[in-house]
Amino acid sequence: MSDRERRSRRGRVRRGREASLKSVSIKPLINKLPFTKVLAQEGIEAIHQAAMRLLKETGILVINYPPALETFRQNGAKIEGEMVWIDEDTLMHFVRQAPSNFTQLARNPANHLFIGGRHAVFAPVYGPPFVGDLDRGRREATLEDFHNFARLTYMAPQLHHAGGTLVEPNDIDVRERHLDMLLAHITLSDKAFMGSVTHPDNARDTVTMGEILFGPEAVGENPAVISLINASSPLRFDDRMFGALEVYARAGQGVIVTPFIIAGAMSPSTLAATLAQQNAEALFGICYAQMLNPGSPCIYGSFLANIDMRSGAPCFGTPEDTLALYAGAQMARYYDLPYRSGGNFTASRIPDAQAGYESAGTIWPTIQAGTNFVLHAAGWLEGGLISGYEKFVLDLEMLGIVARFTEGISLTGEDFAWDAYAEVGPGNHFLGSQHTMRHYDTAFYQHTVFSMDNYEKWVEEGSEDSYKKANVLWKRMLRDYEAPPLDEAIAEELNAFVEHRRAEIRAGKPRSQWKR
Amino acid sequence: MSDRERRSRRGRVRRGREASLKSVSIKPLINKLPFTKVLAQEGIEAIHQAAMRLLKETGILVINYPPALETFRQNGAKIEGEMVWIDEDTLMHFVRQAPSNFTQLARNPANHLFIGGRHAVFAPVYGPPFVGDLDRGRREATLEDFHNFARLTYMAPQLHHAGGTLVEPNDIDVRERHLDMLLAHITLSDKAFMGSVTHPDNARDTVTMGEILFGPEAVGENPAVISLINASSPLRFDDRMFGALEVYARAGQGVIVTPFIIAGAMSPSTLAATLAQQNAEALFGICYAQMLNPGSPCIYGSFLANIDMRSGAPCFGTPEDTLALYAGAQMARYYDLPYRSGGNFTASRIPDAQAGYESAGTIWPTIQAGTNFVLHAAGWLEGGLISGYEKFVLDLEMLGIVARFTEGISLTGEDFAWDAYAEVGPGNHFLGSQHTMRHYDTAFYQHTVFSMDNYEKWVEEGSEDSYKKANVLWKRMLRDYEAPPLDEAIAEELNAFVEHRRAEIRAGKPRSQWKR
Repeated sequence: MSDRERRSRRGRVRRGREASLKSVSIKPLINKLPFTKVLAQEGIEAIHQAAMRLLKETGILVINYPPALETFRQNGAKIEGEMVWIDEDTLMHFVRQAPSNFTQLARNPANHLFIGGRHAVFAPVYGPPFVGDLDRGRREATLEDFHNFARLTYMAPQLHHAGGTLVEPNDIDVRERHLDMLLAHITLSDKAFMGSVTHPDNARDTVTMGEILFGPEAVGENPAVISLINASSPLRFDDRMFGALEVYARAGQGVIVTPFIIAGAMSPSTLAATLAQQNAEALFGICYAQMLNPGSPCIYGSFLANIDMRSGAPCFGTPEDTLALYAGAQMARYYDLPYRSGGNFTASRIPDAQAGYESAGTIWPTIQAGTNFVLHAAGWLEGGLISGYEKFVLDLEMLGIVARFTEGISLTGEDFAWDAYAEVGPGNHFLGSQHTMRHYDTAFYQHTVFSMDNYEKWVEEGSEDSYKKANVLWKRMLRDYEAPPLDEAIAEELNAFVEHRRAEIRAGKPRSQWKR
Repeated sequence: MSDRERRSRRGRVRRGREASLKSVSIKPLINKLPFTKVLAQEGIEAIHQAAMRLLKETGILVINYPPALETFRQNGAKIEGEMVWIDEDTLMHFVRQAPSNFTQLARNPANHLFIGGRHAVFAPVYGPPFVGDLDRGRREATLEDFHNFARLTYMAPQLHHAGGTLVEPNDIDVRERHLDMLLAHITLSDKAFMGSVTHPDNARDTVTMGEILFGPEAVGENPAVISLINASSPLRFDDRMFGALEVYARAGQGVIVTPFIIAGAMSPSTLAATLAQQNAEALFGICYAQMLNPGSPCIYGSFLANIDMRSGAPCFGTPEDTLALYAGAQMARYYDLPYRSGGNFTASRIPDAQAGYESAGTIWPTIQAGTNFVLHAAGWLEGGLISGYEKFVLDLEMLGIVARFTEGISLTGEDFAWDAYAEVGPGNHFLGSQHTMRHYDTAFYQHTVFSMDNYEKWVEEGSEDSYKKANVLWKRMLRDYEAPPLDEAIAEELNAFVEHRRAEIRAGKPRSQWKR
């Protein structure tokens, strides 16, 4: 199935218009280890076949968006009302045109991101209407919170990507929020960021702001944004998401097509069906993007949890989620597409032990599956309803841990430490050996949040649990924050564009083309 | 390297002398999934070769135990003082005689345990001098705590094995503690248990009590106990551990030969050397057991953490530990030996978020590595210094989660839920569908400790974090506990033996043979 001849058309990266002088450096995460698998080849093919049957026989509902129905009709799908049925040959003809990898631009060229292959990219939590911290509990998120999470993300070397809707800025009119969020991403950070998907005009605003930042030519060659296109599962897409997808695909910007599935509700309660449905939905969205603009960058997305059968509540960190996460990665690789899944998920409302178990129980499989784009890698609480300040800092520790894991085990002569055995000999310790001294700085992962102190020292220093410890750390990070400098001409044009659009939105006028 | 013709000599299991009527049923955990790997075949062979070089050139120190030196000498090793050097052919000749799997007896025959292959066995924390709970913090453990953890372990369907030194009963004279611990394991539970390793006489007492419980014939066919033989790393064994190993191996009882390594102190700070050293030590101990009694059951053990280079404190849940855990499993499989490693490890002192992250970060790799015997699967805190009551209950949830994971993804026609798609169709939910009803009870893992409640419900019910929630649960488990009935004749003989040995110990008399 994998198309060996297909090569990314987006490998060449034009340098951005300016580089930040003061920037937090990120290190690409390239997984050297074999990926973990849960499906045999027959299993992958069974899920593929079931997805093809769903697309051909059950069909996909595309609501309130005639242009997409027309596009599918013109390209050989069967249409009736808002239903679309598509056969394997037609679908796969388009899916095969999606690149197997691409590079997303960042304001700081050192932060350009390769998406695909053995690379993993970590991005913060996306979408919560609430924030939470130890001092004030849960509350509605504001633009100030958005700014804080943008600053924290910029400060975190563990996060490669600035993310998108870090929190919902509820104190800003919903029609112009996207402008404030984009402006914050561009001005407070120099990492790559995500686009708005709440309306096609917001997607257009996103592309325009990307063009102001990078220049229209650069944005034509490599995407300035990656945006999250959710299916309205089961087997359904809507005008909002397909409208945004259309804008981005035509502009050559990246999309993550993600079925949003809580199994047992938005899919059957069995994993096989859920995976087939996810596969059908993801490929259908990717197929649409390729019909609109062959070669436009797409990521095969998975957001798959399950309900608690007793209460109907969504669960995270479950064995079913983990199996699905691994299986999804195998499906994406089968189609030679970059894979988005996972994060530091939990159903817990605060960063307690449950949150730790569930989050580690998701981020470990996320990295071991070979996931390429990891949204929700830091800050997620209460099934994605809360961006947690302390949780964010705790999750960073885990990201550092799993990143180090992917480097694997070095097996050079030096690593076998023959001189240390000659120096130390049986029964003695290696602490002071020459070999230990040579490897002192890099030998082991160094913790920044978790404490290895013994009980006595811990009591002496105030018996702080990790929730309290993280509370101190995020405040310190915000105190230490300094914005990366932005070219003044760009800043001015961005502000002018944002004011222009605010005026249009407030006056209820249609969106006009931005002229420099 | 793997010896395909070698078959367990211990597959036939004689039924125990009595079965408990009221017993908590355990379900064998058989991992259906591919194991995760971190080493290529060349890596495995490089570590094997380095271990062979360590054994041949650097050597192993066997302190205060001339009988072992003599055994090695007679079997072809080179001896000088307390140093032993052994070549690959000699070592592997003996290692190959260890069975690839065996069955341990339990008082309840339904709880007999297969050790090896794709089976995983979970046992509780081993060895802490302290206990900890939410109400009283950390304190010295007593026999009452031992009894409590024995009861909790018996009550937990997630734990297949009763473990050994659940806590150190500090209120009992160190010379007779083993008798109280063994008596507790036998009378309070009907699961398989571990033997004492603190003195060869204690090992003899363990075997005698096993013979009283199961009959000498049964204990000759299948081990009544598995016991933990630690190397005194680096490259060293002592009289205490080799003395106990000798008693157990001669009696055909199981031993887990485990190098106890905090890398950077007891081994070099590089993983390659640490793994080679661990391999050398484990194989040396297993070789010794096979010299004493060919075919006696042995488990390849790994307890491998690393120091914090800044403070010297041991770290848990680190990327290095995880890599070593996976690599160790690959080495054990290379020799076709059952593997012991992992658990729910943390350096944290209480079950906070750090404890959750680190524990999940160890138990997931433990199961994915294909570990056969998992000590410390529940209750571990502060690097093994504390048996935590709440931590025990929280860890049980994780054990349930990883056990369900190993069942993998079922791909039958029924699993693809075709009737559900026909019934529900695109855009509608599956909650009430016939297919969901058919799978209602078994669809997803059901939590017992972790809470999926939303914020409102959680606040309404008292805003309990998982530490507080677990505090309620272990108390309820202890309230609900009922001892499995024990054959009166066996109970009498056990008590008589224990009193006989207590009298000998208190009088300072040498151990006499027990006569029925």
